[in-house]
Amino acid sequence: MEKVDHIGIAVKNLDESVKYYTEVLGLKLERIEEVPTQNVRVAFIDAGNVHIELLQPLSEEGAIYNHIQKRGEGIQHICFKVENIREKMAELKEKGVRLLSEEPIPAAGGAEACFIHPKDSFGVLYELYEKNGKGVNE
Amino acid sequence: MEKVDHIGIAVKNLDESVKYYTEVLGLKLERIEEVPTQNVRVAFIDAGNVHIELLQPLSEEGAIYNHIQKRGEGIQHICFKVENIREKMAELKEKGVRLLSEEPIPAAGGAEACFIHPKDSFGVLYELYEKNGKGVNE
Repeated sequence: MEKVDHIGIAVKNLDESVKYYTEVLGLKLERIEEVPTQNVRVAFIDAGNVHIELLQPLSEEGAIYNHIQKRGEGIQHICFKVENIREKMAELKEKGVRLLSEEPIPAAGGAEACFIHPKDSFGVLYELYEKNGKGVNE
Repeated sequence: MEKVDHIGIAVKNLDESVKYYTEVLGLKLERIEEVPTQNVRVAFIDAGNVHIELLQPLSEEGAIYNHIQKRGEGIQHICFKVENIREKMAELKEKGVRLLSEEPIPAAGGAEACFIHPKDSFGVLYELYEKNGKGVNE
């Protein structure tokens, strides 16, 4: 775990949220992209030392849509940058930690990611994220 | 808003959570302190570029206890470091943002803080935090 790359926040309306973060909080919008594999439209906000990743569901399915249905808008996950995601996954499994996928999955910015089961992290959904040379998250 | 100082996480058992963050995730415990004004025992974990603030309620009252009752353990707030908290509060009020207190309140590490109403931040509880020379959060 090198450092926190971003904090993921589920929102209903990306454009309204981006307006709040930029015009009210005074932060800078980095970029907006769609990640169809995760069924979301994503805005990256520059929060100085980390990114804030605003996630709007593209339709009525997927983790972000479910989060909003169950818990409302709000913080959904914390993402750690790791050097080697496969090594880290193996290490965590050995320590008895449950991961939400057997293999890394594609993430925003051309990266690979995996999630730790929030029950093992005392209610927090942690994403692990390897930039693998193609990432544009910095 | 200079940068994210810490991410606040509500936990039921501080010692068990600290064990997970240090032994399983491999992060470093910085310190543990009590903040009686907020009715919490707090552990600061070094997550590289930000701190993770684990918060355990000291009794059956206060924001952290209520969070656990309503939503279970998990991420409770994101804290931004600001240069001048009184100026920032005035600026946000002028923009129509509701704050949870009229004046700054005492926070961990001898700092002053205030919270933005989560309804105005699309479901996220943001803390603003001024170190005022006495802080030990870095």
